[in-house]
Amino acid sequence: MTPKPSLVFGSDHAGFELKELLKAKVEEWGYSVKDCGASSTDAVDYSDYIVPVVKEVLKGAVGILVCGSGIGMSIGANRFKGIHAALCCDAFMAKMSRTHNDANILVLGERLIKTDEAVACLETFLNTPFENGRHTCRLEKLDHLTLS
Amino acid sequence: MTPKPSLVFGSDHAGFELKELLKAKVEEWGYSVKDCGASSTDAVDYSDYIVPVVKEVLKGAVGILVCGSGIGMSIGANRFKGIHAALCCDAFMAKMSRTHNDANILVLGERLIKTDEAVACLETFLNTPFENGRHTCRLEKLDHLTLS
Repeated sequence: MTPKPSLVFGSDHAGFELKELLKAKVEEWGYSVKDCGASSTDAVDYSDYIVPVVKEVLKGAVGILVCGSGIGMSIGANRFKGIHAALCCDAFMAKMSRTHNDANILVLGERLIKTDEAVACLETFLNTPFENGRHTCRLEKLDHLTLS
Repeated sequence: MTPKPSLVFGSDHAGFELKELLKAKVEEWGYSVKDCGASSTDAVDYSDYIVPVVKEVLKGAVGILVCGSGIGMSIGANRFKGIHAALCCDAFMAKMSRTHNDANILVLGERLIKTDEAVACLETFLNTPFENGRHTCRLEKLDHLTLS
């Protein structure tokens, strides 16, 4: 059995409740967890919660980011080389994000997804290996894209 | 009436058929269209179709990227400052991506979305203005995120 990765969570106010629920779930599943906030449903900027999670993921953790729609989090996290942040609406997307994209951050939108589906996404995300093969070269290209 | 923006499309093989269908639709709607490929369902790397679309979007066009799941395209496009690429699974997400995230690239997964829903996403995306207000500062922060 491969050892369980460390998990790092981040959210804004609109993703706070789903973050708390998922954190409790993965603790039940035996993962070690770091929480980078937010710490309540008081309004904050999602943009402020991205970098702390990205830093841990670049050191080897698996990230989970939650905001209202997941869109802002996925834009910001993917600014960084080495990050493959996947906004997922169901477990099938979560599976694809691992098999084809070697995603290292699962992004969820609390306003868009039911709790059971969010848990299914996370479970699938954590238990699906990357397929390698033809996908590896495509992913490597993502960190070498330039406008020149 | 605001003038219609130019639209720029890109896809890989897995997004080719949906790209063609959406292109025909927006031509009916009176938009001018640039197509950066792919040009068939022969296997290609999605990573190669991102930069041509990003370049046009940074000059003011609105982008549409399609691959199998949309995940690879959204990772790659969001590598670039000024790009807000939103992977959308339904018209509500497309609306949120415009009102809250000022998204300038709509990303769709051909394997994940029914044709009618994809058309509804695109129509909503093209016709929903950005809300400004509290969202502006959050978006500006996305282009200034650093690891240091």
